[in-house]
Amino acid sequence: MSYAKQKLKEEKVFKDPVHRYVHVRDTVIWDLIGTKEFQRLRRIRQLGTTYFTFHGAEHSRFNHSLGVYEIVRRIVDDVFHGRPEWNLDDRLLSLCAALLHDVGHGPFSHSFEKVFGLDHEEYTKLIVLGETDINRVLSKVGHDFPEKVAAVINKTYENKLVVSLISSQIDADRMDYLQRDAYFTGVSYGRFDMERILRVIRPREEQAVFKQSGMHAVEDYIMSRYQMYWQVYFHPVTRSAEVLLSKTLHRAKELYEEGYSFAHEPVHFKSLFDGECTLIDYLKLDESVVMFYFQVWQEEEDAILRDLCSRFMNRNLFKYIEFDPTEETQKYTELEELFRRAGIDPDYYLVHDSSSDLPYDFYRPGIESERQPIYLLMKDDVTLQELSTRSEIMKAISGKRRTDHKLYFPVDLLRDESSNRTVKRKIRNILEIYRK
Amino acid sequence: MSYAKQKLKEEKVFKDPVHRYVHVRDTVIWDLIGTKEFQRLRRIRQLGTTYFTFHGAEHSRFNHSLGVYEIVRRIVDDVFHGRPEWNLDDRLLSLCAALLHDVGHGPFSHSFEKVFGLDHEEYTKLIVLGETDINRVLSKVGHDFPEKVAAVINKTYENKLVVSLISSQIDADRMDYLQRDAYFTGVSYGRFDMERILRVIRPREEQAVFKQSGMHAVEDYIMSRYQMYWQVYFHPVTRSAEVLLSKTLHRAKELYEEGYSFAHEPVHFKSLFDGECTLIDYLKLDESVVMFYFQVWQEEEDAILRDLCSRFMNRNLFKYIEFDPTEETQKYTELEELFRRAGIDPDYYLVHDSSSDLPYDFYRPGIESERQPIYLLMKDDVTLQELSTRSEIMKAISGKRRTDHKLYFPVDLLRDESSNRTVKRKIRNILEIYRK
Amino acid sequence: MSYAKQKLKEEKVFKDPVHRYVHVRDTVIWDLIGTKEFQRLRRIRQLGTTYFTFHGAEHSRFNHSLGVYEIVRRIVDDVFHGRPEWNLDDRLLSLCAALLHDVGHGPFSHSFEKVFGLDHEEYTKLIVLGETDINRVLSKVGHDFPEKVAAVINKTYENKLVVSLISSQIDADRMDYLQRDAYFTGVSYGRFDMERILRVIRPREEQAVFKQSGMHAVEDYIMSRYQMYWQVYFHPVTRSAEVLLSKTLHRAKELYEEGYSFAHEPVHFKSLFDGECTLIDYLKLDESVVMFYFQVWQEEEDAILRDLCSRFMNRNLFKYIEFDPTEETQKYTELEELFRRAGIDPDYYLVHDSSSDLPYDFYRPGIESERQPIYLLMKDDVTLQELSTRSEIMKAISGKRRTDHKLYFPVDLLRDESSNRTVKRKIRNILEIYRK
Amino acid sequence: MSYAKQKLKEEKVFKDPVHRYVHVRDTVIWDLIGTKEFQRLRRIRQLGTTYFTFHGAEHSRFNHSLGVYEIVRRIVDDVFHGRPEWNLDDRLLSLCAALLHDVGHGPFSHSFEKVFGLDHEEYTKLIVLGETDINRVLSKVGHDFPEKVAAVINKTYENKLVVSLISSQIDADRMDYLQRDAYFTGVSYGRFDMERILRVIRPREEQAVFKQSGMHAVEDYIMSRYQMYWQVYFHPVTRSAEVLLSKTLHRAKELYEEGYSFAHEPVHFKSLFDGECTLIDYLKLDESVVMFYFQVWQEEEDAILRDLCSRFMNRNLFKYIEFDPTEETQKYTELEELFRRAGIDPDYYLVHDSSSDLPYDFYRPGIESERQPIYLLMKDDVTLQELSTRSEIMKAISGKRRTDHKLYFPVDLLRDESSNRTVKRKIRNILEIYRK
Repeated sequence: MSYAKQKLKEEKVFKDPVHRYVHVRDTVIWDLIGTKEFQRLRRIRQLGTTYFTFHGAEHSRFNHSLGVYEIVRRIVDDVFHGRPEWNLDDRLLSLCAALLHDVGHGPFSHSFEKVFGLDHEEYTKLIVLGETDINRVLSKVGHDFPEKVAAVINKTYENKLVVSLISSQIDADRMDYLQRDAYFTGVSYGRFDMERILRVIRPREEQAVFKQSGMHAVEDYIMSRYQMYWQVYFHPVTRSAEVLLSKTLHRAKELYEEGYSFAHEPVHFKSLFDGECTLIDYLKLDESVVMFYFQVWQEEEDAILRDLCSRFMNRNLFKYIEFDPTEETQKYTELEELFRRAGIDPDYYLVHDSSSDLPYDFYRPGIESERQPIYLLMKDDVTLQELSTRSEIMKAISGKRRTDHKLYFPVDLLRDESSNRTVKRKIRNILEIYRK
Repeated sequence: MSYAKQKLKEEKVFKDPVHRYVHVRDTVIWDLIGTKEFQRLRRIRQLGTTYFTFHGAEHSRFNHSLGVYEIVRRIVDDVFHGRPEWNLDDRLLSLCAALLHDVGHGPFSHSFEKVFGLDHEEYTKLIVLGETDINRVLSKVGHDFPEKVAAVINKTYENKLVVSLISSQIDADRMDYLQRDAYFTGVSYGRFDMERILRVIRPREEQAVFKQSGMHAVEDYIMSRYQMYWQVYFHPVTRSAEVLLSKTLHRAKELYEEGYSFAHEPVHFKSLFDGECTLIDYLKLDESVVMFYFQVWQEEEDAILRDLCSRFMNRNLFKYIEFDPTEETQKYTELEELFRRAGIDPDYYLVHDSSSDLPYDFYRPGIESERQPIYLLMKDDVTLQELSTRSEIMKAISGKRRTDHKLYFPVDLLRDESSNRTVKRKIRNILEIYRK
Repeated sequence: MSYAKQKLKEEKVFKDPVHRYVHVRDTVIWDLIGTKEFQRLRRIRQLGTTYFTFHGAEHSRFNHSLGVYEIVRRIVDDVFHGRPEWNLDDRLLSLCAALLHDVGHGPFSHSFEKVFGLDHEEYTKLIVLGETDINRVLSKVGHDFPEKVAAVINKTYENKLVVSLISSQIDADRMDYLQRDAYFTGVSYGRFDMERILRVIRPREEQAVFKQSGMHAVEDYIMSRYQMYWQVYFHPVTRSAEVLLSKTLHRAKELYEEGYSFAHEPVHFKSLFDGECTLIDYLKLDESVVMFYFQVWQEEEDAILRDLCSRFMNRNLFKYIEFDPTEETQKYTELEELFRRAGIDPDYYLVHDSSSDLPYDFYRPGIESERQPIYLLMKDDVTLQELSTRSEIMKAISGKRRTDHKLYFPVDLLRDESSNRTVKRKIRNILEIYRK
Repeated sequence: MSYAKQKLKEEKVFKDPVHRYVHVRDTVIWDLIGTKEFQRLRRIRQLGTTYFTFHGAEHSRFNHSLGVYEIVRRIVDDVFHGRPEWNLDDRLLSLCAALLHDVGHGPFSHSFEKVFGLDHEEYTKLIVLGETDINRVLSKVGHDFPEKVAAVINKTYENKLVVSLISSQIDADRMDYLQRDAYFTGVSYGRFDMERILRVIRPREEQAVFKQSGMHAVEDYIMSRYQMYWQVYFHPVTRSAEVLLSKTLHRAKELYEEGYSFAHEPVHFKSLFDGECTLIDYLKLDESVVMFYFQVWQEEEDAILRDLCSRFMNRNLFKYIEFDPTEETQKYTELEELFRRAGIDPDYYLVHDSSSDLPYDFYRPGIESERQPIYLLMKDDVTLQELSTRSEIMKAISGKRRTDHKLYFPVDLLRDESSNRTVKRKIRNILEIYRK
């Protein structure tokens, strides 16, 4: 039998707290899970620095990747299977893309990407197409199979239905992470009736659509997503830890570029700093490695690097206030100047950070990323109607972007009156830092 | 107001998936949580290598420590408070001991302790009494307060009631970890009706006891514990990863002692290898550090160290068979010899490992650790009766120790027929390794 | 000690699947629960005919009443207690009103009220103030205590804060029933983070308000409510059973008024039919009694009564189509005429029914019932801001009423071609009833 | 297509709080659910009088019957399907038997059966084989199909594997009711890992067996069952309500036999009292009917009937003490005499009641009902071993019967000192009734 069709002698299962069990029957999937590039995802947290806010959020991308695979497996095997709109040849492709969609993520992805100008989608492509165990497994399925998997993940695959299972306004990726992140953080917001959504999802040419009878479950999913963004993903304490992480990486990079002599050389970071991080270098990076450096750098001579690392290790985070960037630029400039006078480098210790989310939007030509809307399938089994034309609630929130700005700074340093007492008081007044 | 009685201006809560919320009102507790020694517990997993079996089990000891604190807080504030048998002066002591009971744990505690002859209780004592932030906080409560906290954790404190809250056959430690480990692994066995147990727990001179009306909840807790041991804690795949970890540490130590020249020096391990690990050395160790070394040691020249590290990183674990040490010693000796002939060092690649548990026992003088039994408080509110005298089920299982032995080995090496083909076949026959 | 302050020797608890336990410490509450008027709520379902759609929805108003009491108890004892805005004298009053708020409900309240022009609030008043066991218990607290309890339930009590706990856009009544109905039906929509809401609720002069930090939990509650209305409470199958129930009661009343000679006399209904249902009559009515009559009336001579009762007993419900009352009046008139010609009385077998909900609204003078908005308490602990001014989502849905119209009819009768074949076909065409 | 193989055009689902959804695809099953005999199960509670103890336990046998069907459906369609030991022809038979296994239950079955010498299994047979809608549906499958369904339910069907799915020490009936009763009461004990059990169940000639790897899940199920019996099913308050119910029925029967002239004639009970209850009579009985009579009999002239009915309606239950029937016969006789002297009829007001359970047993020839043990299927996929030979815990509890005796009596009557003061005091002393 061809490798693509090969089944394990007995189904393997993973006990999963969110989906009860993750079921694996295909040898290809089993082999992919066993590769070292996939196992590496165990060393990268799903939610980066969120565990500083919600202590339960210590789960890894390994966890989530299995979950996305399981949801797609249920969709294609339990719902799409046998329907004329579904091409059975896309089954294994969908499963592999679901499993591997996050394989290019590095440690604390968000911060790393911003600081070093990386793109995890680029590394995903390299991992799927390059000299890796994953590529070896995929190539056994067919010589062009790795290309197809990469295309699905990068949203360029011609069959948009397959792409939509993993990347759309309601896809397996989001359905897994909302539930999973809610489970591990312990917040109740991420719950929605996925069982119902899986009962009403249907294959159509350009994308997966949803029977009208499941509209309320879809609405509920959108609202869950909205809540999770503001309650969990954009939580100001998490963002404060992100800010700290970015600034630490910035400092290390700056020192390296200045020729600073590290007590503990940033061996694993050099190619990142030089902007020439190869796939081999990249795969050696994980959160243990980052934490190791932050640990040892607590003893570096450079006061700023030392301080930032120590803050991150010991969760001594920056505090924050609301900030209006359109009205308060002058305040910011003034604060920068005062920080400098207080001997506190504002480049590292006075940080403006913003978050922004658009819970749902229909297609608006030329606007933003021209997102594909969610379609409802009417009772005639033919007509499609865009979600917000049928749902008052969705219509009400469509295209309503919400943005939030904050200013982060170290209260302890500003309270330390052993030096620059007057200027610090002035700063504290502006930042509304009062007695504990 | 004295520091011991100081309350936060507003109660702080931690969102906890097991207890919903962990509530902190005491400044002392808040300050302890903020110390770097306590924050370090975020970098030590609660269940060591169990995440290789149950991928959800990635939670840290930080998580669990907050949970134990919360349970003790509920017992002393909601149940014991105001009862004549309860001394209010023991309140803060109980809370601190609960929070800190695991603070001396190192990375992958079980393996590290066995390989390097460490004792986490000893380090707990050092952390509580030594020059640490934790000690500084505790000393502010009273000059002898650190000593008291250490005594409670080490079970030598004179008030046995306080000790029993944290260390007994039914204590807050176990109640938290059973539920928490069940939650994160996703297995259903760890559940029991803790709410009911907290309703029937009562303070008595020597220990906490349980109103007879809650007997079934106590039985259920014991059975949950039994199930969790065999389903989760002693799972053979987890033990296989433990075996690998131990052997890796052994190999590194042996190489160090032989004067082997490491490409990547085991800086953080030296004092461990030398048997003189100071508190400062110890506190720098965490699971990120261990993983870092395992990562870089995948490129060491020594084939065994390289192989073992790579297996651990990529979850290429040993397989196992049942093994009867009383009847099969000869088989083991024979296998050792055959492994040597096959060029596979049995000291690292043929491992006998056993697990053993006693779900519940009453007091048997002179036997084992003379464990304190669980007592039921009869309706007259005075008489105590030992659990197994009232419960048929508990009587049936009391003192019934169960032990399980397994033999672990690397199937892939034994299947590789590029060398020593005949002898490997012989080994495979004995170990019942057949075609995939 | 005064009866109002009397405590049970030991706290009593009720095991509750939604709140884990309901705790009772006050003798007054314990005595109220024991009255026969309160026990009667066990024989009245919380959700009327919903169990025909969601088979788990068989729970009673007894269940729910304990739940509302428990939520109010937690609010006043755990949150309001000790705050200057909270008058301790209102504690017992709030608990009693919470427990008794639904005590005037009759069997299948909604239908009974509509058909017989009853008002459960009126009967609540009679039960609280009349010659009942409940009144005897309340009077022991104080001679004007029953009046106060009735005033709180009827929203006329002067202290609006107390009223708002039980009747407002976010009150204990709604918080309990959303969660409880979700639990028993098994749908996931009714969940929201009540624990968080209870943490941020604060007493203010005119009503309970919510700290701004809990805004998202409040939003989530509103969305849960919206979903429950459309997914559960207004479910067309449930409404179909309601329609059947109303028509059955109508028929019995009509027959009674026409002097029809019942084989089984409607003894328990007579005073209802005559419009002079006394409190004593009313208290004898419960759902067992109604079901008993429907059971025996399956053998009445009147074909319509017989048929309707049998349909209700055996869940042989009407089917439905969407209906637009503004555009389709002519269609309705035509159908009425056709039904008559087909020998099917449209008064009983062609029913237009509508549902309507307003998820949230702020105060609009003179409009609808001038509902009290939800207020957020800002960080300064003084300023109040109306919810929709702070929440984009709430602003988007405020005042958005949604209404849904349906037409109900018996498909089986219309398919029966043993008579009036042609006209029935015509009807089926209009109603879009095709082959099974 | 034959009726037996006919599928619904679209799968129907029932939202179920325990199994999430109950799935129906077979027209036969859909038609059976729609029969009036099956719909009648909505009017019979699953747990009789348990709702007086656990207020959530208001769920019906309709609920449970769907659940048992769903479990059997999952076993035969997801696990047994395609295995050589499973005969596909038994599929529909198993589903029908699962759905209908409780269809012969009457109101408050336990009490009714004892008082009137009924046997619900006999009525099940009559319903399946007699002139009923259910029989009409089953007969359409095949003329001997009703006989087969009855045989499976009555355990006489030749294929014992099919029987074991519904009646054995671990069957779908028990698996559903443990979970369902736990869910509705809110107790945590009934939980076990059914998902795991369904993964390891295998068909064998004489019965369903369980792969050894699932042994712990089976142990856990047995322990759950044990806990549910003692925590819920045998709860003394529930038994007290049962006692009251039985005594009420006894009284009504006695009065009827004595020729007492009822104000409200026991029309629905007559054939029961006469011992000649036909199927038609039987099907008219449900819990609404019983409650109706109890309601109206509160106004009967007979003081005992009036009192017992009123107690039942208003939950004014008997209290209890432990009672040892082997040692305390004299005490009982003495009490009987004293009750008579106090003017309280001991036949109705002094009741000895016992409960007894055997959590698990292996086959012991000639003993009790010679129950079929649970077998584990060893790794060789052939050998079967009886559960208790492999499990220490099961061995420990096998055959351990636990029995509990209690004496029930009305405290209020015994406390009423308006008459027979001295003798009542004497009784109170013996029964240890002290001041409130």
